[in-house]
Amino acid sequence: MLDIALVGCGGMMPLPNRYLSSALLRYEGRMMLIDCGEGTQVSVKQVGWGFKNIDCICITHFHADHVAGLPGLLLTIGSSGREEPITIVGPQGVEHVVRSLCVIAPEIQYPINFIELPYRGESNIPIPMTSYKLSAIPANHNCPCFAYRIDIKRTGKFDLAAAQKLPIPRKYWGFLQRGDEIEHDGRIYTPEMVLGAGRKGLAVSYCTDSRPPRGLASFVKNSDIFICEGHYGEDEKLDKAKSHKHMIFSEAAKIAKDGEVKELWLTHFSPAMPNPEIFIENARAIFENSHVGYDRMVATIGFERD
Amino acid sequence: MLDIALVGCGGMMPLPNRYLSSALLRYEGRMMLIDCGEGTQVSVKQVGWGFKNIDCICITHFHADHVAGLPGLLLTIGSSGREEPITIVGPQGVEHVVRSLCVIAPEIQYPINFIELPYRGESNIPIPMTSYKLSAIPANHNCPCFAYRIDIKRTGKFDLAAAQKLPIPRKYWGFLQRGDEIEHDGRIYTPEMVLGAGRKGLAVSYCTDSRPPRGLASFVKNSDIFICEGHYGEDEKLDKAKSHKHMIFSEAAKIAKDGEVKELWLTHFSPAMPNPEIFIENARAIFENSHVGYDRMVATIGFERD
Repeated sequence: MLDIALVGCGGMMPLPNRYLSSALLRYEGRMMLIDCGEGTQVSVKQVGWGFKNIDCICITHFHADHVAGLPGLLLTIGSSGREEPITIVGPQGVEHVVRSLCVIAPEIQYPINFIELPYRGESNIPIPMTSYKLSAIPANHNCPCFAYRIDIKRTGKFDLAAAQKLPIPRKYWGFLQRGDEIEHDGRIYTPEMVLGAGRKGLAVSYCTDSRPPRGLASFVKNSDIFICEGHYGEDEKLDKAKSHKHMIFSEAAKIAKDGEVKELWLTHFSPAMPNPEIFIENARAIFENSHVGYDRMVATIGFERD
Repeated sequence: MLDIALVGCGGMMPLPNRYLSSALLRYEGRMMLIDCGEGTQVSVKQVGWGFKNIDCICITHFHADHVAGLPGLLLTIGSSGREEPITIVGPQGVEHVVRSLCVIAPEIQYPINFIELPYRGESNIPIPMTSYKLSAIPANHNCPCFAYRIDIKRTGKFDLAAAQKLPIPRKYWGFLQRGDEIEHDGRIYTPEMVLGAGRKGLAVSYCTDSRPPRGLASFVKNSDIFICEGHYGEDEKLDKAKSHKHMIFSEAAKIAKDGEVKELWLTHFSPAMPNPEIFIENARAIFENSHVGYDRMVATIGFERD
């Protein structure tokens, strides 16, 4: 099962009743955070999944409302007893930004690895991670910014008949099923030999801050949940959205529709929009399964039953 | 009148129901903030005095729970339309720390002046400010740290009989009363010529994080409000307080008593102490007018009536 928590749904500045946009994903007990504005650690605490197992933090871009909470969060992760490295992914310069912010956090003991993404083109950038597939695509903001996608792959179904035909002991089947290669009697056996065609996995996509970027609908294709900025609710705010490089609800819904995602969660609301839910029909008219995000909106998604 | 708001009362990390320790002072519409941890701007917003008139920010020390909120706050002050310079006071290195944190806030347009305090001795360090007297004294923490004191001076009462004896027109009396010198008929007239003895002003002192520093009781002498850390409530936590360079309630109360302050506000509570009020008697047994601080505890103090 993959758990998703919308840690916060605000844009620009934290408000008394709204944390800044951030998402936390948990799979098999390990976690990944996307963006970390001022106060994010407080909402993460309220989510209740702990801090120690946050292995990766993806930063969309370097505006304060997406990164200012990093030193506090990294210190709190340290206080949780973490000693293993953390990976921080972001636009080029992310190491410099994080190290500058951490001038007030010299007591962080665990290592931090950085992955800096090249900001060009429209193609997916694969990011090496162990337990899931992570990729990014450039967004279209007033500074280098990335949208992210997390895929939990699912192997094909175990093919008992095929396994029984192989001249290897039954005790090796489990290894093949889990994806390991086996050498037996001088011959290599691969997982594909006992697995059927790959089955649909799980996918979550996240895009803020941005105008509708070229290629985004393909990038988020078939996501179970697509978390997308809707900085303004009203269609009348389109010009403002264009000049501030943000989206209106209906633009996010159009991407959700074109990308054939299952569900759209709107986020990164303007501080001047205290009640974004009153504009939800602007999204639903285009993509029905649109939802106005709220702090600590949580979902659990699992593989489809065979 | 001098307004004081305890913006937050937490130590180490922001909690869902407790912002980090910070105090906001307002006098004649102008404001000064002491410390700015992660989330401070949200509580300042709830205080409701606005952001634009914050002229000065005093930083006690560079631990994240006292400074991590600076980039967000400075950006929000900018969004309020401020163009005048802000003064940031702190230990030596404060300019480097603030500029490092502001790597994510390049859009700040107004100038920032820095005053870096020398960390030595026990004597008061006067800090040049226009509308009030600001001073600092080294605290005793595990890094350079300062306690601050703000004094609103009050001149002596206008002495009508003395003024009438001076050979200057009545229209100059007001200037002398407000503290200006006047030249008339080749002679200099000074405010002291028409004012009685200086009267008691207003004073607020603030000390966190620290063991009881030498000289602090004299430094806070006769303060109307003394805001002091009480990281732990129980006397049994004294050893822990010593090793972490913090105070227990009874130590703060002893300073309040020796300093003959009017009122003690305890702050900077350990995250492991969710209900500090249950320990208040440990302070009141020593200094009766002790109070457990809470987020947005507010007081207004005025000059004594003649």
